[in-house]
Amino acid sequence: MDLQTLQHEAASRTGLTVTRRDVERVLAALQRTGDVWKVVEYSRTPMRVVCALLDVLQENGGLTVQGDQLVFTAEGQAFCEQQGIAPFTTATCPTCEGRGVVLDLLGDIRERFHTIAQQRPTPLRQFDQGYVTPEVTLARVAFLWERGDLVHKDIIVLGDDDLVSLALALTRRPRRVVVLEIDERLVRFIEEQKAAHQLTALEIVQHDLREPLPEALCGRFDVFVTDPTESFVGFRAFTERGLLALRGAGSAGYFGLTHVESSLKKWRDIQRFLLDYGLVITDLRDGFNRYVNWGYEADMRSWAWLPVKVPPRDMWYTSAFYRVEWVEPQEIPNRPFSGNIFEDAEAATT
Amino acid sequence: MDLQTLQHEAASRTGLTVTRRDVERVLAALQRTGDVWKVVEYSRTPMRVVCALLDVLQENGGLTVQGDQLVFTAEGQAFCEQQGIAPFTTATCPTCEGRGVVLDLLGDIRERFHTIAQQRPTPLRQFDQGYVTPEVTLARVAFLWERGDLVHKDIIVLGDDDLVSLALALTRRPRRVVVLEIDERLVRFIEEQKAAHQLTALEIVQHDLREPLPEALCGRFDVFVTDPTESFVGFRAFTERGLLALRGAGSAGYFGLTHVESSLKKWRDIQRFLLDYGLVITDLRDGFNRYVNWGYEADMRSWAWLPVKVPPRDMWYTSAFYRVEWVEPQEIPNRPFSGNIFEDAEAATT
Repeated sequence: MDLQTLQHEAASRTGLTVTRRDVERVLAALQRTGDVWKVVEYSRTPMRVVCALLDVLQENGGLTVQGDQLVFTAEGQAFCEQQGIAPFTTATCPTCEGRGVVLDLLGDIRERFHTIAQQRPTPLRQFDQGYVTPEVTLARVAFLWERGDLVHKDIIVLGDDDLVSLALALTRRPRRVVVLEIDERLVRFIEEQKAAHQLTALEIVQHDLREPLPEALCGRFDVFVTDPTESFVGFRAFTERGLLALRGAGSAGYFGLTHVESSLKKWRDIQRFLLDYGLVITDLRDGFNRYVNWGYEADMRSWAWLPVKVPPRDMWYTSAFYRVEWVEPQEIPNRPFSGNIFEDAEAATT
Repeated sequence: MDLQTLQHEAASRTGLTVTRRDVERVLAALQRTGDVWKVVEYSRTPMRVVCALLDVLQENGGLTVQGDQLVFTAEGQAFCEQQGIAPFTTATCPTCEGRGVVLDLLGDIRERFHTIAQQRPTPLRQFDQGYVTPEVTLARVAFLWERGDLVHKDIIVLGDDDLVSLALALTRRPRRVVVLEIDERLVRFIEEQKAAHQLTALEIVQHDLREPLPEALCGRFDVFVTDPTESFVGFRAFTERGLLALRGAGSAGYFGLTHVESSLKKWRDIQRFLLDYGLVITDLRDGFNRYVNWGYEADMRSWAWLPVKVPPRDMWYTSAFYRVEWVEPQEIPNRPFSGNIFEDAEAATT
């Protein structure tokens, strides 16, 4: 067993780019936890690659399964020590969970939003849904506020599984909040909450983001917020719609991006296309978004890859929160996207 | 007075790209503070642009100087309200100051490093020096640790005004820490501390980063750390040396980048050249680095731009902390850079 063999074996089994560093990250995570879901989280490596590596490690006698836990064999442990791979360690701030922002600005909105969130519809696999905790939604609002993207701004939310539109509107600071959402259950829920809390600045449109952005929404917003599906084409579809909605130079966009379903190679491809569209990345806070377990784990394509078929107990799916700002606006095509935009080789949750 | 006039006037006086959003950011900052240095900090806009805007606002009767404070006139205040520009607001976590990491991992290293930092040499303008607080240097170490870039790693520090090399070595976790530093006072200080604390993994080389990287250091490191001078050519020189020192795919680099001396246009140019070299940006935490006032403010080129000639009372110069990782390593030239690499149109502290 050596790192290069593990790397090449994982690459050839998955067809994905795997670096020696990815292997190190998985071994570091395994030294900290035996919970396969937390290994995915701690390793910041695509789930598909993690699972392939776990298979190879088991076959090579470096790893065993005891109950629902992954455990290094004596040989596996010795290998890590010999390679100088230390256990995964965190220095995350306990107050803000590493997000860098607190919610004091939001006052009693915090409590009101928690109450709203308790009544929300459950996630649907059909739309690749899975939502963040209420604290994360509120932290996004605080972060937008700090960045000057909230007060008196026109904000568009593209897909709103996370109920960001409601949290934004509850502050009563934006001039306008428009939310596009495909799921009629969510549309109805947001409409109901709008009425209950008299959120006059909030507009809800049922819309499939695969369709072109309605003309009336093009070039009318200061800010977009979205949590895209992560196939490259799906990500591109969501962010192109966001950019189409923006006014121009100085407008800003926010989105999430994971390591679970996106390799660093895909991250780089995405960053290149953002820069090519004239944007600059102003903030990138990894681990900002934490998702509530959605309940359809056993139906995901990644279930088949797991060496231990056990549902997640704790939160494990996290994403980075990006802010981009338009420096040199470019022409954005308003094209339809057809078929399945949710899946690519790295997708795990579809 | 309107936003567009302010924008165009600031652009034509400075020759720099100025967006309407930059004007908004400066007006938002001015609504929060009358301290010109804090306006620079809060606005996240190049100092040169901020100062040009302050001039235009004064000439237009929107702003006056009272003592050492900038104060909106009634007309200026009305203009902000009419434009819907709200005061700059922060949601920064008080525990970690927005950095997202705490120092618990570091144990008594924290106290030892503070003691070392109290004896350090003062900054020299000749080398564009200016150092971060000891807490920030320690937070960088905690962040590297969390990212798996510390334990058993070979780390190169390119220019070490911040004494990162000492803080890294004090953890006794890296395999090797090499520091290249031009200033013989700092070289001597780091040597003395190395001896006093028996930091056997630490090597100090007196070196001018304008010269090619010594062959013996090329391709030998897992991680580089640098806080580059911010002219585009200077930034490029420092990061190219860092990349030359790295082993390849999966190696990582850390550096600071400000808004004080770098417009978002320059940020974008820098991000493009990083991606072109095969890197991906994995973390970008704005405001992570906070710098102690260096004492030569009145000798800086930006002193002449200030509408109020008053030395800074509080910290005001901050920078974002970037982490990049090499996905597709490219050939990096090991060329000499001659002349003044510290200055470009946006430089303020030279």
